[in-house]
Amino acid sequence: MARTTGSHSDITGPRIRDVAMRLFAQHGYAAVSMRQIASDVGVQAGALYNYTPDKQSLLFGLMQGHMEDLLAARAARDVPEDSLAQLEDFTRFHIAFHMERADAVFVSYMELRSLSDENFATIETLRRRYEDELEQILRQGVCTGVFSVPDTKIATLALIAMLTGVNTWYRTGGRLSVEEVETIYWDMVRKAVAP
Amino acid sequence: MARTTGSHSDITGPRIRDVAMRLFAQHGYAAVSMRQIASDVGVQAGALYNYTPDKQSLLFGLMQGHMEDLLAARAARDVPEDSLAQLEDFTRFHIAFHMERADAVFVSYMELRSLSDENFATIETLRRRYEDELEQILRQGVCTGVFSVPDTKIATLALIAMLTGVNTWYRTGGRLSVEEVETIYWDMVRKAVAP
Repeated sequence: MARTTGSHSDITGPRIRDVAMRLFAQHGYAAVSMRQIASDVGVQAGALYNYTPDKQSLLFGLMQGHMEDLLAARAARDVPEDSLAQLEDFTRFHIAFHMERADAVFVSYMELRSLSDENFATIETLRRRYEDELEQILRQGVCTGVFSVPDTKIATLALIAMLTGVNTWYRTGGRLSVEEVETIYWDMVRKAVAP
Repeated sequence: MARTTGSHSDITGPRIRDVAMRLFAQHGYAAVSMRQIASDVGVQAGALYNYTPDKQSLLFGLMQGHMEDLLAARAARDVPEDSLAQLEDFTRFHIAFHMERADAVFVSYMELRSLSDENFATIETLRRRYEDELEQILRQGVCTGVFSVPDTKIATLALIAMLTGVNTWYRTGGRLSVEEVETIYWDMVRKAVAP
């Protein structure tokens, strides 16, 4: 009976998260059972409940983890001084970060509908914090005349939608490298907010 | 036994489509049963099979119908002569058309994963036909020096993602009318592809 639960869950936790994310992305949250997740991980369904109290908590944990990883990765970057360089840095960061996490991005968008009200509010707060970083860059650039947009909030949402859209068509090993994609989008972003 | 099946299915068909679209958008295709659709429509599950052979055909019909409506609505428009006016017309059309069909847009994006290979190929062909209309506008404008983009195909996908993104934040009765939203996005689109 005695076992090193610490090292056990250290291994099982990430595996459960990986499997759940993949299954939610493939079939949708509502269609995936805890039993199916356990089966794909290779544990008994009961063992899953040592890790998470229920499926809602598992989904919430995945979406919260994704947003916290995003905010932490942003915070770890050296932010350039001038607005134009900040916007370029944000553009390249956003594309590279999201391209590497296609399932998480898809689930985070699609399964907002599946979150409890409280969990939804938490995810929305994290999402707004990220959006605020871009809006702050735009607002400062508008103040100094580097940028001109009719509405910084809408411009923020428009640019983020445009950049995240890369995930719908980019395939690793295709004709363009990530950096080439970043450069193509940067050209459009730069001009879209130009005076 | 004799009944006017024509008028019966005239009424039931649209109701089945409306209910199925709403349920697929709310819960995801895999989580919704034919029984649940029938129950929400208010008919026996068996009656559904008079209308559609199976759930896959129902989903495909919804997605195909959405794309055909889109292409028909585009084709019905008077296209302006010059490239800039064409791009403005496309921008305003795309936003207005998609805003009115939030469930169809959501299901069409999210449930591509749920289509059979053959049905996926058909939807992709329709989607490409729509994208080609925008790419053609961009390509012609690039030729005449009205526009400048690094890659017309990627610019097409980037602009469509940006415009469809309106659906994630716009709420009817909010601070902006549809026309005001169109104008804000047109400002960004116009500049994004400017020389």
